[in-house]
Amino acid sequence: MNINQATEKLYKLQDKISAYNHAMSLIFYDGATTAPKDTAQNRAHTLGILSEETYILMTGAETVELLEFLDENKASLSDKDKRIVYLSLKNIREMQKIPMDEYVAYQQLISESDTVWHDAKENNDFASFLPYLEKIFETNKKFARYCAPDKDPYDYYLSQYEEGLTKEKCDEFFSTLKEHIVPLISRIAEKKQLDDSCLKGDFPIEEQKAFSYELMKAMGISLDRCGLAETEHPFTTSLGSHFDVRITTNYNTEDLSSSMYSVIHEGGHALYDMNSDDDLAYTCLDGGVSMGIHESQSRFYENILGRSKGFVEYVFPLMQKAFPKQMEGYSADDVYKAVNLVTPSLIRTEADEVTYCLHVMVRYELEKRMMAGEINASDLPREWNRLYKEYLGVDVPSDREGVLQDSHWSGGAIGYFPSYALGSAYGAHLYAKMKESVNVEKCLACGDLTPVNEWNREHIWKYGSLKPSTELLGEALGEEFDPLYYTKYLEDKFGELYGL
Amino acid sequence: MNINQATEKLYKLQDKISAYNHAMSLIFYDGATTAPKDTAQNRAHTLGILSEETYILMTGAETVELLEFLDENKASLSDKDKRIVYLSLKNIREMQKIPMDEYVAYQQLISESDTVWHDAKENNDFASFLPYLEKIFETNKKFARYCAPDKDPYDYYLSQYEEGLTKEKCDEFFSTLKEHIVPLISRIAEKKQLDDSCLKGDFPIEEQKAFSYELMKAMGISLDRCGLAETEHPFTTSLGSHFDVRITTNYNTEDLSSSMYSVIHEGGHALYDMNSDDDLAYTCLDGGVSMGIHESQSRFYENILGRSKGFVEYVFPLMQKAFPKQMEGYSADDVYKAVNLVTPSLIRTEADEVTYCLHVMVRYELEKRMMAGEINASDLPREWNRLYKEYLGVDVPSDREGVLQDSHWSGGAIGYFPSYALGSAYGAHLYAKMKESVNVEKCLACGDLTPVNEWNREHIWKYGSLKPSTELLGEALGEEFDPLYYTKYLEDKFGELYGL
Repeated sequence: MNINQATEKLYKLQDKISAYNHAMSLIFYDGATTAPKDTAQNRAHTLGILSEETYILMTGAETVELLEFLDENKASLSDKDKRIVYLSLKNIREMQKIPMDEYVAYQQLISESDTVWHDAKENNDFASFLPYLEKIFETNKKFARYCAPDKDPYDYYLSQYEEGLTKEKCDEFFSTLKEHIVPLISRIAEKKQLDDSCLKGDFPIEEQKAFSYELMKAMGISLDRCGLAETEHPFTTSLGSHFDVRITTNYNTEDLSSSMYSVIHEGGHALYDMNSDDDLAYTCLDGGVSMGIHESQSRFYENILGRSKGFVEYVFPLMQKAFPKQMEGYSADDVYKAVNLVTPSLIRTEADEVTYCLHVMVRYELEKRMMAGEINASDLPREWNRLYKEYLGVDVPSDREGVLQDSHWSGGAIGYFPSYALGSAYGAHLYAKMKESVNVEKCLACGDLTPVNEWNREHIWKYGSLKPSTELLGEALGEEFDPLYYTKYLEDKFGELYGL
Repeated sequence: MNINQATEKLYKLQDKISAYNHAMSLIFYDGATTAPKDTAQNRAHTLGILSEETYILMTGAETVELLEFLDENKASLSDKDKRIVYLSLKNIREMQKIPMDEYVAYQQLISESDTVWHDAKENNDFASFLPYLEKIFETNKKFARYCAPDKDPYDYYLSQYEEGLTKEKCDEFFSTLKEHIVPLISRIAEKKQLDDSCLKGDFPIEEQKAFSYELMKAMGISLDRCGLAETEHPFTTSLGSHFDVRITTNYNTEDLSSSMYSVIHEGGHALYDMNSDDDLAYTCLDGGVSMGIHESQSRFYENILGRSKGFVEYVFPLMQKAFPKQMEGYSADDVYKAVNLVTPSLIRTEADEVTYCLHVMVRYELEKRMMAGEINASDLPREWNRLYKEYLGVDVPSDREGVLQDSHWSGGAIGYFPSYALGSAYGAHLYAKMKESVNVEKCLACGDLTPVNEWNREHIWKYGSLKPSTELLGEALGEEFDPLYYTKYLEDKFGELYGL
């Protein structure tokens, strides 16, 4: 085998893995969107087979041999090929450390746990979910020891979602946020509350759907390559490559902002995923590099851009057109204030921009202590409620609105939550950088987001997973990431809004 | 390898093939239902890879060795296992004759052709579809020569959809139909036309959707295992097994019967597919055995049952509930007459029960001549229009309403059309047999189709593809199939309706 033959083989393998991923993502998407009620077992049957095939393709002896050959000859590889080999081998070396039977048992646990969690949430029955939660944390601790015996287990998972992230860095990051956000919330609480009545009322789903498409167009998302569907929990998925991306939303007929900002948030993920260089399609480099960077894009569009005065003015005519009666007598300024009302609340996904990070911190604290063995799964409801009281000043009336609200733990995603807060802060720093060369206000006033999207494409999107996230972010910022851009952004914006 | 090990391996292989089929069917379904406009190439990319993998699974050396071993030991196999081995080997022996690169290229051609056909139909632009049509017929001729060099190419494809079917048998069958149907149409034309105004008006899509679900329930279709979606051309597909079936329809807001009878037709396919014995799931025996038998079920529910007086009386209250204003002043009898109005027309899927087979005959004649090389793809529009004038007496105003109307050729389904007519005639004969033990009228009057569905399940559905279609039909009928049951049914029913 010479290098050319091996490279050709590598791309054929990447192609195949992409095709399997297309199939599996679509089966998942179908299940969440349109599949009939009693067909989950049939999907699980097929997914079991396809994921086993994918596992073999990714870690089989032939693949390992190929990748090791290419790794030995990496001096002759392009940057792109080198990165594909590096990421694939990294993945294999970790997967190889987990005994196959334990890996399979964990996949089964996760798949059952999702169903149990759904029911537990619906019935407000933490006890039924507890044994799964215990086992998931336990298995994750064990897997971390297998994969990175020299590393702290929680550090290992944090770095899985954001390269190089550690508890120490998180602690420092969150303490900076806390230092600024907690007093900001107190000062806001003393002021007259903003009025959000323009977004409450009766907003029929069909009209919200039509409005969602208008919003996507306003964001610069091509509807010819990005679909929209309805699911219980909004998400974004790519099918096979960045040439076909789908976002989903959930409509609340009594509150327009709920789906509106889900669409903008998922639209941000979609823009990132859809704009990898075409050259990266059908490889593991296609699509966003890390959850932190991904959230920096989704939360940039949702909040920094989407809840700005200029953006609200830009989309207000679309709101008026979609909901002429409901919007009667209201102005863009009324909407701007309504979407920026700050109030401590119970549900993370519905939290405002200021209190949002406190929701994340609760989860971070609990994961950290769980992974360190300082608390047990059975302590989680009590500790959750205690921290909500301490951080947000709210009483949690039920586990459904408390510890059972998120799907992450039931899906085994431990260490994911901090990327939401990190992404928000990345977004604010990137925004400051973008404004050095893009007149964002003018773009919004002219109704053309092209320069904004172009900046993101040039600095973030086009690279897909070609560069490690720290390198990508560092190069885009031209300096070290600094969370004070985020806290200053919040202080300035909400200082003005609330007259602090 | 002993027999037990080989059998176990066989089922693992069947399982895998079912999983790949699940993925490919879903990707096709997604393309027809919800995929964004410019994503066809991305789907073609994935389908190319998955069909290559499936091809290898179905025809690879390891598979051939396994099947040949089992075939040599077939005396020790169950009927089910024997049939799986027989069908798989039959398929292999044919597929092996097609070079893999040509097979994969054809799959890609078909997938692209579907998009081109859609646009061509929309823009009434036959020229853009012509090169695809040429290539599809050409490739099919070539494949027929590879697979069955001693057989007439069209006979080969006819027998692919209906075991043992030939041009000779088709000619004889169609000439029997013609002999009875042509004079029947003439006699009807002399009589006062029926009134179908109760089905014309304004029927909003959302209300038609809700009505479609009611119809499915009335037919005894479990909505927990059968989905409904909207596509340009209605179809039915199974995803991986009979545990997840989807039907689609197309709504015409000005004509209630259009989607109503599509739903009932596809519902008939769905009932057949959904009711294979559970034991057959995840094998090649799951689902209907041939297109002729499949159409015998769909056209039985659509016409023989669905356009009967009893069925219309059964579902009329559902129509009144779904469309209270539109149905005001009309009776079940008005609807019964409206859905049985006979008039020569342009569109096959909207044709009445009597003229329908003439639409099929046009397509049969053209396919026959194309496969014999007597005409070229470029002759099709002219010949289509000429035959419509000759058989149905209508002038075809555009290719959109003419040669471009059906999706079959763009999907490579040559030889499929005759099964619609054959199925209709099977259905009439099966109905005569069913009535010997089931009081269908009473079932409809009581609003419970269970005994009708049970008869079909016991005699047809549960067998999936376990028995060859001729054997299945012969056993269900207890005698040889006779198309005169069909012509007599038409003559009786329409004789009464039109007072002949």
